[in-house]
Amino acid sequence: MLESPPVAIVMGSQSDWPTMRHAADTLDTLKIDYEARIVSAHRTPERLVDFATRAKTDGFRIIIAGAGGAAHLPGMIAAMTPLPVFGVPVESKALSGQDSLLSIVQMPGGIPVGTLAIGKAGAINAALLAAAVLALSDEDIADRLDAFRREQTESVALFPADEG
Amino acid sequence: MLESPPVAIVMGSQSDWPTMRHAADTLDTLKIDYEARIVSAHRTPERLVDFATRAKTDGFRIIIAGAGGAAHLPGMIAAMTPLPVFGVPVESKALSGQDSLLSIVQMPGGIPVGTLAIGKAGAINAALLAAAVLALSDEDIADRLDAFRREQTESVALFPADEG
Amino acid sequence: MLESPPVAIVMGSQSDWPTMRHAADTLDTLKIDYEARIVSAHRTPERLVDFATRAKTDGFRIIIAGAGGAAHLPGMIAAMTPLPVFGVPVESKALSGQDSLLSIVQMPGGIPVGTLAIGKAGAINAALLAAAVLALSDEDIADRLDAFRREQTESVALFPADEG
Amino acid sequence: MLESPPVAIVMGSQSDWPTMRHAADTLDTLKIDYEARIVSAHRTPERLVDFATRAKTDGFRIIIAGAGGAAHLPGMIAAMTPLPVFGVPVESKALSGQDSLLSIVQMPGGIPVGTLAIGKAGAINAALLAAAVLALSDEDIADRLDAFRREQTESVALFPADEG
Amino acid sequence: MLESPPVAIVMGSQSDWPTMRHAADTLDTLKIDYEARIVSAHRTPERLVDFATRAKTDGFRIIIAGAGGAAHLPGMIAAMTPLPVFGVPVESKALSGQDSLLSIVQMPGGIPVGTLAIGKAGAINAALLAAAVLALSDEDIADRLDAFRREQTESVALFPADEG
Amino acid sequence: MLESPPVAIVMGSQSDWPTMRHAADTLDTLKIDYEARIVSAHRTPERLVDFATRAKTDGFRIIIAGAGGAAHLPGMIAAMTPLPVFGVPVESKALSGQDSLLSIVQMPGGIPVGTLAIGKAGAINAALLAAAVLALSDEDIADRLDAFRREQTESVALFPADEG
Amino acid sequence: MLESPPVAIVMGSQSDWPTMRHAADTLDTLKIDYEARIVSAHRTPERLVDFATRAKTDGFRIIIAGAGGAAHLPGMIAAMTPLPVFGVPVESKALSGQDSLLSIVQMPGGIPVGTLAIGKAGAINAALLAAAVLALSDEDIADRLDAFRREQTESVALFPADEG
Amino acid sequence: MLESPPVAIVMGSQSDWPTMRHAADTLDTLKIDYEARIVSAHRTPERLVDFATRAKTDGFRIIIAGAGGAAHLPGMIAAMTPLPVFGVPVESKALSGQDSLLSIVQMPGGIPVGTLAIGKAGAINAALLAAAVLALSDEDIADRLDAFRREQTESVALFPADEG
Repeated sequence: MLESPPVAIVMGSQSDWPTMRHAADTLDTLKIDYEARIVSAHRTPERLVDFATRAKTDGFRIIIAGAGGAAHLPGMIAAMTPLPVFGVPVESKALSGQDSLLSIVQMPGGIPVGTLAIGKAGAINAALLAAAVLALSDEDIADRLDAFRREQTESVALFPADEG
Repeated sequence: MLESPPVAIVMGSQSDWPTMRHAADTLDTLKIDYEARIVSAHRTPERLVDFATRAKTDGFRIIIAGAGGAAHLPGMIAAMTPLPVFGVPVESKALSGQDSLLSIVQMPGGIPVGTLAIGKAGAINAALLAAAVLALSDEDIADRLDAFRREQTESVALFPADEG
Repeated sequence: MLESPPVAIVMGSQSDWPTMRHAADTLDTLKIDYEARIVSAHRTPERLVDFATRAKTDGFRIIIAGAGGAAHLPGMIAAMTPLPVFGVPVESKALSGQDSLLSIVQMPGGIPVGTLAIGKAGAINAALLAAAVLALSDEDIADRLDAFRREQTESVALFPADEG
Repeated sequence: MLESPPVAIVMGSQSDWPTMRHAADTLDTLKIDYEARIVSAHRTPERLVDFATRAKTDGFRIIIAGAGGAAHLPGMIAAMTPLPVFGVPVESKALSGQDSLLSIVQMPGGIPVGTLAIGKAGAINAALLAAAVLALSDEDIADRLDAFRREQTESVALFPADEG
Repeated sequence: MLESPPVAIVMGSQSDWPTMRHAADTLDTLKIDYEARIVSAHRTPERLVDFATRAKTDGFRIIIAGAGGAAHLPGMIAAMTPLPVFGVPVESKALSGQDSLLSIVQMPGGIPVGTLAIGKAGAINAALLAAAVLALSDEDIADRLDAFRREQTESVALFPADEG
Repeated sequence: MLESPPVAIVMGSQSDWPTMRHAADTLDTLKIDYEARIVSAHRTPERLVDFATRAKTDGFRIIIAGAGGAAHLPGMIAAMTPLPVFGVPVESKALSGQDSLLSIVQMPGGIPVGTLAIGKAGAINAALLAAAVLALSDEDIADRLDAFRREQTESVALFPADEG
Repeated sequence: MLESPPVAIVMGSQSDWPTMRHAADTLDTLKIDYEARIVSAHRTPERLVDFATRAKTDGFRIIIAGAGGAAHLPGMIAAMTPLPVFGVPVESKALSGQDSLLSIVQMPGGIPVGTLAIGKAGAINAALLAAAVLALSDEDIADRLDAFRREQTESVALFPADEG
Repeated sequence: MLESPPVAIVMGSQSDWPTMRHAADTLDTLKIDYEARIVSAHRTPERLVDFATRAKTDGFRIIIAGAGGAAHLPGMIAAMTPLPVFGVPVESKALSGQDSLLSIVQMPGGIPVGTLAIGKAGAINAALLAAAVLALSDEDIADRLDAFRREQTESVALFPADEG
């Protein structure tokens, strides 16, 4: 038990990976271990139940879940684990992620999903929010997160540059 | 086995009943047996799994599922049963059921939910659609459905009436 | 009489075929016969009336109807047949299918259209929902649908793969 | 033949009358004859076909059609008559007439419906637009319409008044 | 006086022409004369006033007005002429014509604009609606419109064709 | 000339006054003179032209314009005056001011309307923005605006209070 | 230092308290200390800076921030603290919280706000998500959260009840 | 003091420059000095506070602020300066600037941001609105603005031109 890394990144399908890999990349930058898995709420409901009900005893501490369209994955995981779940609405084709956003964020009182922005920005931010949570009890992560944000601040140019 | 009525009406919470009872009333009118249950995808996920995975062997033939907000119930049932699932978006407070509608109808390819209109009209129509399906192999239901529609047609007045 | 295949796939125009052929392909996969026709509610209203009023006696059992924009085809067919009608909102140019979706799903109480997702996913799912309905009284279809879903479940990889 | 008044006001159900009567009242004010009827595209499709295909030979010149939700009435009438059709989106419960508006206005190229605003303003304006069309070949109506608009202009106060 | 053709096609800017030319082409097909002009409500308000206040005495009978974004042209023309005005919401960049549609269709009671669909379909239909109005008092146009619609009906294939 | 107060508050109809009076009240608080008038772009287009083309020579310096639905008043004034125009979208019945907002804010490049929030907040803020502009060349107004904002800041309680 | 309770509940104005008190009540139920404060991003920007920049050294561990309309409070706090910030979109008058939701959730990559549902459900869930985070390093809170969820599950009736 | 140009153009990130440069170009055309800077409300909150609190004493007179997504920059600047602030919603990826627009325009009563259209048109218009404000106390700018608008009016062709 407890052999799992602190963060699980789960997504509804392979097609969500180009979005969700930004969460992975951000965790890499912050040197936070994670495991990335495909768990489809609709096509692999047993895998969903297995994953969600065992996530805590497996040793995960935070779950980042991304999905698009009628995006049920984050909310259904949240229904089956006491761990914090952060949801990333993946941009959908016809409705540009408006369906994904509402399907994830509008959870009923009782089962929370902390929802981030649609698409890449949301994936990055899910990782940063996970880091902020872990930093509450891990000084090293707190230091790395502070450094990340300091660099981010310093990287903002003072003046806009014309581009070729 | 097979002691269940042909239709299950499930809903995410007691607060969906004022909407979903219109499905029940319509089935009553058509003399089609049903069972109405509360199954919360988020608050009672085990009940959801039990219900959905056993629905077919329990003898149900069609499932009508209503929910509001981030409405995951219809889609999650559809993920765990081969039976036809008809979804009713219950009108939500802030977004008037737009969230419910998108959460139910925008299912990914592979797991269908036949979605009806938001609110009361959708609940009535879920029952009528269930009746239409049952009528494919039940002449009595077909006759009663025909009668229902004939009466419905005849009840439409020719001229609008001023109202007190 | 009754020489028709069990499923009719109708669409408002040739331009809907790239979407609706996914319904046809899915029925092919499941070895379910169908007939695909163009029936424009607006440009060929007589054909609409002919098709819809005779669909049942022609031997069809389920109708899949796709249309875009002010999409009246599914609802008007439903108004003229007791058969189950499943509607597919085809993605429209300016409004990305939001108009198609609302025009199809928001039917008044009394005349149901079981509505699927906008676009390709909806076309696939209309076929799967038709299969689920037919499977209620056809063991072979039930077996093929089960096999389809099992394969679908097994085809979901455990881990996301980077793509070239 | 030609015994009909120049304008037909049709609506999908009795519940549309509180909106559509504003069209009737406006025509009364302009002394333009009309006939108001309930024609439900969904519940009385035969009546729809009868009405629309005979509207021109019956002597109507303009059709005002109001409906709500998946509002198919104006477009379906337009599909079956060469007469000008003006559509009034009736305010719907959950979606406030957004569904009605899109279902009426987003007609495909080939079959036009001149669409007015959602609700009462749209009903008034459908009548005024009908009057403007009739005024093209009827000096008396043109004069009355001019007078109506002059009075309307004169009735606009210069300064806002505080209200009790 | 009265030297003008029966239809004026006006648009807010040159960039609306690729949409509005479909109105012109449709009128050409129906052999109905028209004049196409650029009248910007915002950049040429004097031209707007001149055009709209003189449109009737200039001999126009119907005005087709297209504009995008905060599309004020159709409504402002309607405010200054008793002629029927048909509005075409031109697809806008960011909001895909949703702003154009609402700016045109949501006119207050008193000043109507008969609004067509967003974009090309709306432009075609504005021309067809103008033809339907003119056909009320011109048998030749009525005949050509009937022929147009008959051909349109006949051009709808029975079966969808696969495309290379 | 120049006998006018610095600010004109114009609105499309008497029914906008309950919203727009908040602009008037705020200007009263800041001791800035204004004149409130009804100018309907649609029902009184001549008054609109008179007002807008003469606003500058009449001595106004800033124009606050409120309207609802297809709200053309702010944009049309802006088209006919070089003065700064601030627009207030009045909440509309069916669409809650979404139509008003888009009709006002989505002006084409060339003719600006500085748009405030829908409803009361927007009316208050139009007055405050007018004050900020006037304060650029009027120390007294600058001082009063500073005081207003200081008081506003001080009036924010530290802790939320339970309410009876 | 570190005398603060683990959770801060901040809100943009007194009018947000009827929503945000549900966060407070939920934390009370879970016996988690908190402090509730009004911090207006717009009317008290200094207080915002003071609060956010000192939140961590003051000893807070999690910040729950609620605001409506152009809701900048959660995002601006997140910009000035490394602590996890959970945002609650308060239902706004005209747009029902759609503006609040988008203003909070659509944060750019780099600064996350974990966003909950619009209104009361979101406030409850912000508290539960805070509890889930604290439970990662506090067994007592973990136990109480488990008990809360168990009771919640058990409180769901099996059958819907008719209501007087 | 007062060494600053009259207009500051600030934007949330380098990626906003392709939009905001249209404001700069327009000010260039009108020979109005400006300074363009990147100020990220989220990534550089200290820079934001520095800029906004010193903008007036630095000598700026008007601030044009552009941002996308959860666009907090214009409103936060407005919260910390008495100067007029004009906001430009930059088109966002998933939601096409609808989030940007609502985040900027829906400010609470007390802190105004005069909001322009989404994207390029808004950037141009922010510059023109700034010019209109400066023109109130600068005859030269007033003359150049008049000339700009006259040329703009004259540049509108009378007839649409076919394009290669």
